[in-house]
Amino acid sequence: MTKKSKIDHYTDKEALDFHNRGKSGKIEIISSKSLTTKRDLSLAYSPGVAVPVKEISRNPDAAYEYTSKGNLVAVISNGSAILGLGDLGALASKPVMEGKAVLFKRFADIDAIDIEIDSKDPDEIIKCIQNIGNSFGGINLEDIAAPDCFIIERKLRDTLDIPIFHDDQHGTAIITSAALINALDISKKKPGEVKIVINGAGASALACANLFKSIGIKTQNIIMLDRKGVIYKGRDNVDQFKSAYAVETNLRTLQDAIKNADVFLGLSAKNVLTKDMVKSMAKNPIIFACANPDPEIKPELVDEVRSDAIVATGRSDYPNQVNNLIGFPYIFRGALDVRSKEINEEMKIAAAKAIAALAREEVPDEVVNAYGGERPHYGKEYIIPSTFDPRLISRIPAAVAEAAMKSGVSRRKISDIETYKDQLANRLDPSMSIMQGINAQVKKRPKTVVFAEGEDQNMLKAAVAYKNSRLGTPIVIGNEKRVKEQLKEIGLDENYKIQIVNSTDKEKRDLYTKKLYSKLQRQGLLERDVDRLIRNDRIIWGSSMVDCGDADAMVTGNIRHYAASIESLKKVVDARPGEILFGLNMVITQKKNCIYS
Amino acid sequence: MTKKSKIDHYTDKEALDFHNRGKSGKIEIISSKSLTTKRDLSLAYSPGVAVPVKEISRNPDAAYEYTSKGNLVAVISNGSAILGLGDLGALASKPVMEGKAVLFKRFADIDAIDIEIDSKDPDEIIKCIQNIGNSFGGINLEDIAAPDCFIIERKLRDTLDIPIFHDDQHGTAIITSAALINALDISKKKPGEVKIVINGAGASALACANLFKSIGIKTQNIIMLDRKGVIYKGRDNVDQFKSAYAVETNLRTLQDAIKNADVFLGLSAKNVLTKDMVKSMAKNPIIFACANPDPEIKPELVDEVRSDAIVATGRSDYPNQVNNLIGFPYIFRGALDVRSKEINEEMKIAAAKAIAALAREEVPDEVVNAYGGERPHYGKEYIIPSTFDPRLISRIPAAVAEAAMKSGVSRRKISDIETYKDQLANRLDPSMSIMQGINAQVKKRPKTVVFAEGEDQNMLKAAVAYKNSRLGTPIVIGNEKRVKEQLKEIGLDENYKIQIVNSTDKEKRDLYTKKLYSKLQRQGLLERDVDRLIRNDRIIWGSSMVDCGDADAMVTGNIRHYAASIESLKKVVDARPGEILFGLNMVITQKKNCIYS
Repeated sequence: MTKKSKIDHYTDKEALDFHNRGKSGKIEIISSKSLTTKRDLSLAYSPGVAVPVKEISRNPDAAYEYTSKGNLVAVISNGSAILGLGDLGALASKPVMEGKAVLFKRFADIDAIDIEIDSKDPDEIIKCIQNIGNSFGGINLEDIAAPDCFIIERKLRDTLDIPIFHDDQHGTAIITSAALINALDISKKKPGEVKIVINGAGASALACANLFKSIGIKTQNIIMLDRKGVIYKGRDNVDQFKSAYAVETNLRTLQDAIKNADVFLGLSAKNVLTKDMVKSMAKNPIIFACANPDPEIKPELVDEVRSDAIVATGRSDYPNQVNNLIGFPYIFRGALDVRSKEINEEMKIAAAKAIAALAREEVPDEVVNAYGGERPHYGKEYIIPSTFDPRLISRIPAAVAEAAMKSGVSRRKISDIETYKDQLANRLDPSMSIMQGINAQVKKRPKTVVFAEGEDQNMLKAAVAYKNSRLGTPIVIGNEKRVKEQLKEIGLDENYKIQIVNSTDKEKRDLYTKKLYSKLQRQGLLERDVDRLIRNDRIIWGSSMVDCGDADAMVTGNIRHYAASIESLKKVVDARPGEILFGLNMVITQKKNCIYS
Repeated sequence: MTKKSKIDHYTDKEALDFHNRGKSGKIEIISSKSLTTKRDLSLAYSPGVAVPVKEISRNPDAAYEYTSKGNLVAVISNGSAILGLGDLGALASKPVMEGKAVLFKRFADIDAIDIEIDSKDPDEIIKCIQNIGNSFGGINLEDIAAPDCFIIERKLRDTLDIPIFHDDQHGTAIITSAALINALDISKKKPGEVKIVINGAGASALACANLFKSIGIKTQNIIMLDRKGVIYKGRDNVDQFKSAYAVETNLRTLQDAIKNADVFLGLSAKNVLTKDMVKSMAKNPIIFACANPDPEIKPELVDEVRSDAIVATGRSDYPNQVNNLIGFPYIFRGALDVRSKEINEEMKIAAAKAIAALAREEVPDEVVNAYGGERPHYGKEYIIPSTFDPRLISRIPAAVAEAAMKSGVSRRKISDIETYKDQLANRLDPSMSIMQGINAQVKKRPKTVVFAEGEDQNMLKAAVAYKNSRLGTPIVIGNEKRVKEQLKEIGLDENYKIQIVNSTDKEKRDLYTKKLYSKLQRQGLLERDVDRLIRNDRIIWGSSMVDCGDADAMVTGNIRHYAASIESLKKVVDARPGEILFGLNMVITQKKNCIYS
C-alpha cells in the first residue's frame, strides 16, 4: 500500500488569495451570443426577444430551445451542513456552492449557478425552490442537513418536472457503489452473499444502503450503526429514515458487528475503526473509510494487520479516492442531454456501472500524468477511475442518458449513442488536457520561463502564479522600477522576490548581441544594428535568453504584436522554435481563461 | 426632423435562430479562476474552500471579498408584465431576463443571472427573494405588474441590505428625467414653472413623476391621466399609488389637459396624442411619446404641426431614444463598486444629471459610427447620449458611487474618483468598440470576404452570420460536397446560397498560379511548385483571391496553423498584408466570443 501522491500544500492565506485574486469569487457570467452590433442587441433584447417569449408561452418545452434552461443547473444549499464544518449559514456556504458550480463547467460543460437559501424551514425551502425551479434544467441540492434533505428532495421530486439530485446522498452512493462493484469483483465476492457494516446513518449512508440494494446487496446483510450503535428493531431514537435498516439482531456495537463482515463502509468519524476490528473481518475484507478529512482508520494501519484488504478513502493522497467529482458533472450531463424529468434509480445504477467499467480499462496518459508518471492498473489500488480520466465525459453521460430513455423519463431521444459520445468528448476544452500534460511534464523538470512583458499586470500575475504553483522559476523582462510599481498595483509587496532582467545588464547584452550577430551578419546586419535589436525588442531579448541557455522557454502575451513576435523570434531561435512558439500559442489560446492567471 | 437610422430588419425565424444557434439561450457561466491543476481544484473546492467559508461565517461582509457576490446581480421577474406583451408567465419571461442579464455584462461588466419566480402572490415573491437575496450584490426587478411591483420593491428595500431596483420604474424615470433636464435647457424653460401632462399611470409613469419632483418639477404642475382620464381629487377607482397625483381640477380628458402644457410624457398607448392636441400645447413644447413599439404620436405628425417641438420616443429609428440601457448597467456598476446598501433618490438624481451632462459634450467616434457616419450635436435632436457612447461606463457609475458615499449608504469608500473612472473605462472589452468601428466601416462599403476553412462548422457559421448581417458577401473555400454536408449539419438547407470556391476552378487556378509564380520565381520556385501550393494550401488560395481582387479580405480561424498561415500569406500578399493580417487577428482574438458566430 503506497501513498498515491502528496497533497498540494497551501496556507490559509493562499486559499483566501485564490478566492480574492483579480475578480473576487469563482463565477463569471458571460453572453454566449455576440452582442456587438445594434442588430445583435435588437435580437437579444427588445424587440426581437418577444418572438421566443411568445413561443415559450405557447409551449413551455420551447424554453429548452430558446433559453439556457437546458444546460443550466442550480446548485442550491441552505448551508446547514457545509463540508465537514456543520451549520454555518447560507452565505458562508457560497464559496462551496460557487466551487461546485464551476466544477460542473470544468468537467461537463454545464452552466451552473449557486443559490443560497437563507432559511432552516424545510417548507419554506421547498416553496422557494418550487417557485424558481422551472427555469433550470436541473437542481443539485448540496450540504443540507438530514433529515430535512430527505423531506426537501422528496417533495421537489414529486412536484418539479426536472432532475433533483442531492449530491451528498446520491453522488456519494453512486461512486461508492461503483467502488464496491469493483472491490467485490477483485476479491471474488458475490453481492448477494456479502455482509456489510455501514457505520454512520446520515444522508449519505442511507443513500449508499439504498443503492447497494439495487446492485444486489441483500437488506438483511446490511447492519447500520449511528452514534448510538447498531440500529436494531425496537431501539429508541430511530427516525423513519433509519428504521428501514433496523434489523433483528443482538449485536449492539461496531466491535460486535464488524466480526466476519466482508465490507466496512464508514461515513462517520475519524479513527473509529481499530486494527483489532479489521483483524476480525472476513477474508479479503473491503474497507471504505470515507470520513473527511480523516478516515475511520488510516490505510497504513489496515496494512499493518491485513495484507488481503482493499481500502478506499475520501482522500486524494491515498489510492482509491471516493470522490463525487467522478459523478455529478457527468450524471447531470446525461440527464440534461435527454431533457430528463428526473434522475431515477435506473440512471444512478447505470452511472455506477459505467464508472466501475471504466476503472477496468487501461488508463490514458492524462491519468498517468495525474499519477506523477506512474501508470495505474485495475486492481486493489485502482478500483475507481481517476478524476482526470478524459473518458469519463463520454462514458457516464451516455450510460445515464440511455437509462433515462429506457426508463421513460426523457423528453428527447438520442438515437445515435456513438455520435453522442463523440460530441461529449468534444465538449471539453482540449487545452485542459494539454495543460495537464504540460503541467505534469513541467513539474518533473522545473523550468525557467521568461515572461516577456514584465511591466504588464496580467503577464506579471502570470509570472507570480507560475512561481506560486511551484512549476518553475519565472523571470520577467522590464524596467525594474516599473515592474515593482506594477507588483504593488497587483497587491504584492514591491520587494516581492521575482527575477527582473533588462538590457542594462551589459554583460548579457554583449553576450546576446555576439550570439545573434553571428547569425545575422550573413544577412548584412552590422553589430550595432543587432545590438539595437537586443536592446529595444523584448521578444528578441527573451528569445536570446532561451537561445543562450539562460531560460528554458519564453512566454509572450501580446497578441497585437504576434506577427512581429514571430518575426523577432525567427531571427533568434531558428534552431528550436517549436518550444517557444508552443509557449506563445498556449498563452494566446488561453487569453480569456489564462492558464496561469 | 430626420429619421435617425433604419431599424435592422429580422424575421421571426431569425429571432428564434439567434436564440437557438450553437448553444441555446444567451447565458454562459464560466469559472473566473483557473481550474487546471489538482492544486487549483483543492483551492477552489474541497478542502481549501473551507478557509473562506469560515471567514464569511465570522464576518458576512467577507462574502464581498471571497465570493462573486460583489459583482453579481439577480434579474428577477414573475413574467406578469413582459415587455408590452402582458402576463405570459415566469418561464416565458426567461428570454427577456437572460437578455437583460447579458446586457449587464456587455455594458458594465456585471455578472448577472436571471431568476424567474413562478408565482403571482406578492408575499410569496417577497419571501422567495428575501430567502435568496443576500447571495447577490444587488437585485434588478423586471417586468412585474403594478401594483404588486410597488409592494414587492418596498418590502424588499426595507428588509434586504442590498440595492433593489425595479428598472421599469426607476430606470425609465432616470433616463426620462435626464432627457427632460436637457429638453428644458434647450427650450429655455424652468423646471419650477413648466406644466406637465403625464398620460399613463402605471409603474413607470408614477416613478417618472416622483423623480421629476426631485429635479424641481412642482407636483401641482403635474396632471396625470390613466385609461379613465385625468386623475382628479375625488375620482373613483384611484389606488393609493395614483392618488398621490390626484389634483383639484375641472379638466377631465387629455384634450382638456394638454392645452398650454409645456411637456407631454406618454407611457400609455399608440396614437392617443393627436395633431390638434399638439397644436394646443405651449410654445416650444416637449413631447416624450414613449409607448412601445408604437408611440403616442409619430414624430412626423408632430413635425407637420409644430416646428418648435422637441420629440423623444422609445424607438431607435428616431432621434432621442429613451432607452433604459443608458441607465441600469451603469447605475448598478456604481452601486456595486461602493457595496451600496440601496439605490436611493440621491443616486438616481446623480445618474440622471450625469446622463444629461454627457449629452452636452461632443461625441466620440463610436457614436458617429453608430449614427452611420453623421456626428450628432447636443440640441433638439440629441438630448440623450447614444447607447454606444463609451464614456457612459466611466461617467454614470462614478456619479452614482459618489452619491452613494455622500448619502451614507455605501459600505466601501472610493477615495480617488478619477482613478476609479479610469478603471471603469478599462472594464469594457476593447474589441467591442473596435468591432463597432469595423462594422460601421464595413457596412458603408460591403466587402467580399473569403472564409478559408469552409468545411469547418464554426467557420461556416461565421460565413452565414456574415451574410445574414448584411455586412458583405462571404465566399467559402472547400469541397462543395463537404461544405454542403456541413451546412446541413448546422441546420441549413444544403441548397443554402453561399459561394463555394476551390482549386477545381481551372481558370482561377491558372490565374493565381501565374500571379504567384511571378513573385516566387526569383526565390527559385518552379511553376509546378507554385501550382501545387495554390492547389493544396487554402490560405494561399484565399490570399491569392485577395491579391487578384476576387475578394477584399480573408478570414482564417485555425490557430494551430497560425504561424503557417502567416508564412503562406507572406508568400502572396507582401503588397498588402495589413488588411488580411488584421482579419486574422480579429478572428483569433475573438475565438471564444467569436464576432460573427
